[in-house]
Amino acid sequence: QLLATVGGSGPDASSNRDALVNTLERRLFYIPSFKIYRGVAGLYDYGPPGCSIKSNVLAFWRQHFVLEENMLEVDCPCVTPEVVLKASGHVDKFTDLMVKDEQTGTCYRADHLLKDFCNDKLQKDLSISSEVAAELKHVLAVLDDLSAEQLGEKIKQYGIKAPDTKNPLSDPFPFNLMFQTSIGPSGVSRGYMRPETAQGIFVNFKELYYYNGNKLPFAAAQIGQAFRNEISPRQGLLRVREFTLAEIEHFVDPEDKSHPKYSEVADLEFLMFPREEQMSGQSAKRIRLGEAVSKGTVNNETLGYFIGRVYLFLTRLGIDKDRLRFRQHLANEMAHYAADCWDAEIECSYGWIECVGIADRSAYDLRAHSEKSGVSLVAHEKFAEPKEVEKLVISPVKKELGLAFKGSQKNVVEALEAMDEKEALEMKAALESKGELDFYVCTLEKNVTIKKSMVTISKEKKKEHQRVFTPSVIEPSFGIGRIIYCLFEHSFYTRPSKAGDERLSVFRFPPLVAPIKCTVFPLVQNQKYEEVAKIISKSLTAAGISHKIDITGTSIGKRYARTDELGVPFAITVDDESSVTIRERDSKDQIRVSVEEAATVVKSVTDGLSTWDEVWSQFPHHVTGASEE
Amino acid sequence: QLLATVGGSGPDASSNRDALVNTLERRLFYIPSFKIYRGVAGLYDYGPPGCSIKSNVLAFWRQHFVLEENMLEVDCPCVTPEVVLKASGHVDKFTDLMVKDEQTGTCYRADHLLKDFCNDKLQKDLSISSEVAAELKHVLAVLDDLSAEQLGEKIKQYGIKAPDTKNPLSDPFPFNLMFQTSIGPSGVSRGYMRPETAQGIFVNFKELYYYNGNKLPFAAAQIGQAFRNEISPRQGLLRVREFTLAEIEHFVDPEDKSHPKYSEVADLEFLMFPREEQMSGQSAKRIRLGEAVSKGTVNNETLGYFIGRVYLFLTRLGIDKDRLRFRQHLANEMAHYAADCWDAEIECSYGWIECVGIADRSAYDLRAHSEKSGVSLVAHEKFAEPKEVEKLVISPVKKELGLAFKGSQKNVVEALEAMDEKEALEMKAALESKGELDFYVCTLEKNVTIKKSMVTISKEKKKEHQRVFTPSVIEPSFGIGRIIYCLFEHSFYTRPSKAGDERLSVFRFPPLVAPIKCTVFPLVQNQKYEEVAKIISKSLTAAGISHKIDITGTSIGKRYARTDELGVPFAITVDDESSVTIRERDSKDQIRVSVEEAATVVKSVTDGLSTWDEVWSQFPHHVTGASEE
Repeated sequence: QLLATVGGSGPDASSNRDALVNTLERRLFYIPSFKIYRGVAGLYDYGPPGCSIKSNVLAFWRQHFVLEENMLEVDCPCVTPEVVLKASGHVDKFTDLMVKDEQTGTCYRADHLLKDFCNDKLQKDLSISSEVAAELKHVLAVLDDLSAEQLGEKIKQYGIKAPDTKNPLSDPFPFNLMFQTSIGPSGVSRGYMRPETAQGIFVNFKELYYYNGNKLPFAAAQIGQAFRNEISPRQGLLRVREFTLAEIEHFVDPEDKSHPKYSEVADLEFLMFPREEQMSGQSAKRIRLGEAVSKGTVNNETLGYFIGRVYLFLTRLGIDKDRLRFRQHLANEMAHYAADCWDAEIECSYGWIECVGIADRSAYDLRAHSEKSGVSLVAHEKFAEPKEVEKLVISPVKKELGLAFKGSQKNVVEALEAMDEKEALEMKAALESKGELDFYVCTLEKNVTIKKSMVTISKEKKKEHQRVFTPSVIEPSFGIGRIIYCLFEHSFYTRPSKAGDERLSVFRFPPLVAPIKCTVFPLVQNQKYEEVAKIISKSLTAAGISHKIDITGTSIGKRYARTDELGVPFAITVDDESSVTIRERDSKDQIRVSVEEAATVVKSVTDGLSTWDEVWSQFPHHVTGASEE
Repeated sequence: QLLATVGGSGPDASSNRDALVNTLERRLFYIPSFKIYRGVAGLYDYGPPGCSIKSNVLAFWRQHFVLEENMLEVDCPCVTPEVVLKASGHVDKFTDLMVKDEQTGTCYRADHLLKDFCNDKLQKDLSISSEVAAELKHVLAVLDDLSAEQLGEKIKQYGIKAPDTKNPLSDPFPFNLMFQTSIGPSGVSRGYMRPETAQGIFVNFKELYYYNGNKLPFAAAQIGQAFRNEISPRQGLLRVREFTLAEIEHFVDPEDKSHPKYSEVADLEFLMFPREEQMSGQSAKRIRLGEAVSKGTVNNETLGYFIGRVYLFLTRLGIDKDRLRFRQHLANEMAHYAADCWDAEIECSYGWIECVGIADRSAYDLRAHSEKSGVSLVAHEKFAEPKEVEKLVISPVKKELGLAFKGSQKNVVEALEAMDEKEALEMKAALESKGELDFYVCTLEKNVTIKKSMVTISKEKKKEHQRVFTPSVIEPSFGIGRIIYCLFEHSFYTRPSKAGDERLSVFRFPPLVAPIKCTVFPLVQNQKYEEVAKIISKSLTAAGISHKIDITGTSIGKRYARTDELGVPFAITVDDESSVTIRERDSKDQIRVSVEEAATVVKSVTDGLSTWDEVWSQFPHHVTGASEE
């Protein structure tokens, strides 16, 4: 059979994508939101089959991660006060660089314009010299690292204009990607729609740690909406302004990142793309996960465990393992605090798309919220025996500080006590040599003068009964919409109709994902067959198999085609009062079973208790007449 | 046994509520959001057990409504462009009246201040005359109907000041309750966070009708977040700024509101509170649903069907049927377009709380979006034979209109064609008597003069092949958080500990709702018992029963108390290598079963295949030693 599939970078990629998108929109897998009002860029609805697939993906996510690992699932609001996102860094740093058409005010992403220009030149302008070509390629390679100034320079140098009007462009400036709003009626309390769900978990760390019996490691999880006010969304479902995230924050002792179930995934082998291979221009290669961890390519066991679990999750959904790779972040891509970071990237007709990020974020987030909120987000490890340790002791002399700073005394005391070892030893040295020094108190937002009489700093030996530390967090973060779109591409193919006059669309969703598991068709309109169909429907309901009856008089071939387009894996056709046929979607093979057996057989294959091949070898085959397909 | 329950209006209501809220917060059923930053009024997180209960409630909702009725589920974004909410009326009318402290700017809901004043006076001021008391009671009764002016007058008359400062208050003014934001980077495209999920369904009517094979009736459903920027949230989980709604829009032919499955609910009998009983000061009474529909108290069968289905949904979740009533909206409560409206109200310690609204909204929403978008949202009924009908024909004379209105001709033509029968006949009469008349063209926002030569209006006999009409919509809308809070109150009770020295909290959640179905406890810390516990755990997992093992050395009584507090219905205690006990939460009764049977028995009672009473009569009873509870 001739199968045309979507994806890859061959010449057919975009025409196959057109066929896919046509099927997706026509059968309401998704709908541009507010379509009757001409829509809003970057906003999409899931229609009935899309919504069902999304539910199935999320239910499997809960099963595979939350239940399997006993994670603590929480559900926090989208509306978030500014202070939280100030602490997380989003208010200051969650930006894209934007340029404006100086006459119309239309906004563009600066990097997109530069990227389009370079690609265009490279593809269409045959007159450019090899030096220019090399420079353009270099710009594309370093695009993500360019500062506002560097981007602006390139745009000027290449004479890039506004694409729609050819007007001149402003210099690039940062645009914050959060949707801003105001909480309460006074207008003074600024809030944002959360750009990720993770912060809701971090701010609850203390409560969750207590809930878990004050024990590490444990993971919390959250599924929910997140928002990014993209400057100019493109690539359909891949870059949208509102999307569903599923995030896990696994809290672990930074001194012990082993994982008890690591051995269950260590022997998995799949495409990995370590930093070194990227730098030296090689491509991704199949590596055994256990080897990548033991060699230190993957930073630690827990990170490795989650990479393995993500691989299993995605491939069980139906993602093609040959178009799935785990790419390590380059040093310049990674946040300065991150210990290691890998993206699960899925190849589709738009290229390799980041669908899951798996990062070891070390102690960054908990520390940031500890500092901003003043609530200490730490874990404790009780020692079996007390340990003797040398410890820095900072003792502010409150009387002196009170005289000097009056009402601000408390702020100064807290700031002194919050110094880390390095700061404190520097202060000790300065006080001993100069007698006083300037000291910045962040809660007062100014420097104060600290004198030798105001604080004693010393190192003392102490018996400690416990270790207090900020846990590291390992964060697998799933873009559910992107995974679903890639699943659409990997599952879609077309095949010729029986008459050969048209191409029919099929989704080869596994039963786990399929929006409906089974359809029931009376072969012709006839009361007896409809009665049998109803009996089978009842037994399917009792077995918990989602299904649909189609009693329209449409030809059976058309009815098959209609459900193939929705990715329904099995169809039961009633052509007799005592036995019926079951058809498998991709092979179009049919077996004959008794009415009583029908639901049981479908259940066993949809639940994965047996395969279609097994069923095929157990039951008589049904050969279709020419009229049927 | 002495049981103390929450709710009712007795003197214990609020102290029991304190015990409930203490348990809910301590066990992380919910957490005030962003607590380490001192929280935000009206925002709450669900912690692990709350989140699990919410998932269970939503899964049952999908099962009970979406699957059972083959509804088309959709999933639309929260971010909504202004035009959609302008059409729905929310931009102009979704407001509460607010007053401001004239010195501090603090905002209050005007009706809340007046309500508190009246209640306070009535309860605490014994000196007021019976006339004054009667007036205050009258004010409370009509509170929801008062205009801004009337509210302002009362506030002045009673000398009500800002509660926190005693400063004077501003006049009441409307405050729009939607969270406003801006879509895209230019700042010109205003958007709001949706105040309900319904609009996402209405704007997709045309697509969904086509998906349903152009057939009525059908229902669409959506579960998702909605947002209301409350002026001053109070009552904990009952009045919040972000919440989960589950909404159904059932589209039906306005001339045939029968329902094929109506007979399945007609014999249900429960508390109903029709308009007449409310007006004449009676209370709710038990009425058979079929009687309410046949007498016309409930407007039509489909509305009745949904009332019955909502009753079944709520009571199966564990809502006490004696504290659940269906209250009909009074004429002045209902929107002018609504045909009928009933609220499912649940009684809790805050009074009777609206948790589900079930409204026949007639054709209002689809008409509003048709008008605003210019896309006709209608259904068609094909006639078996063409019918002869008398029809109004409006024929604008384009040449004359073009000469008179030039560029605005199109607007005038559209406005003329959009007239309903009454308007057209009035115009016809006026043109015949006076020769011309003033006519308001809404798209021009002004009056134009229409002359006799510009339009002919006549009634003609025509053959019609189909009927074109705007469907009515019947909308059951569920506030999931409110239902869950009421469920907490109806399920909570306390009972004395064995020693009698403290009161223990219990939630009597049905297994359907319980966050975890079963716990497994080795009676004492011991490797053999732990092995048995693991075997049972595996068989529970295989049976799909969510459960938890607790191998801490805590006394078995304390471990029971801990899980009673979470509402876990069954506990398996391992006190032997071949047999174990199963304890039921509310009776505390225990049976003895073999290790092999344990999971099967728990599954049969949690899935509702057998009752605890049945199981109790089949297995040997286990009598607890004094040390165990």
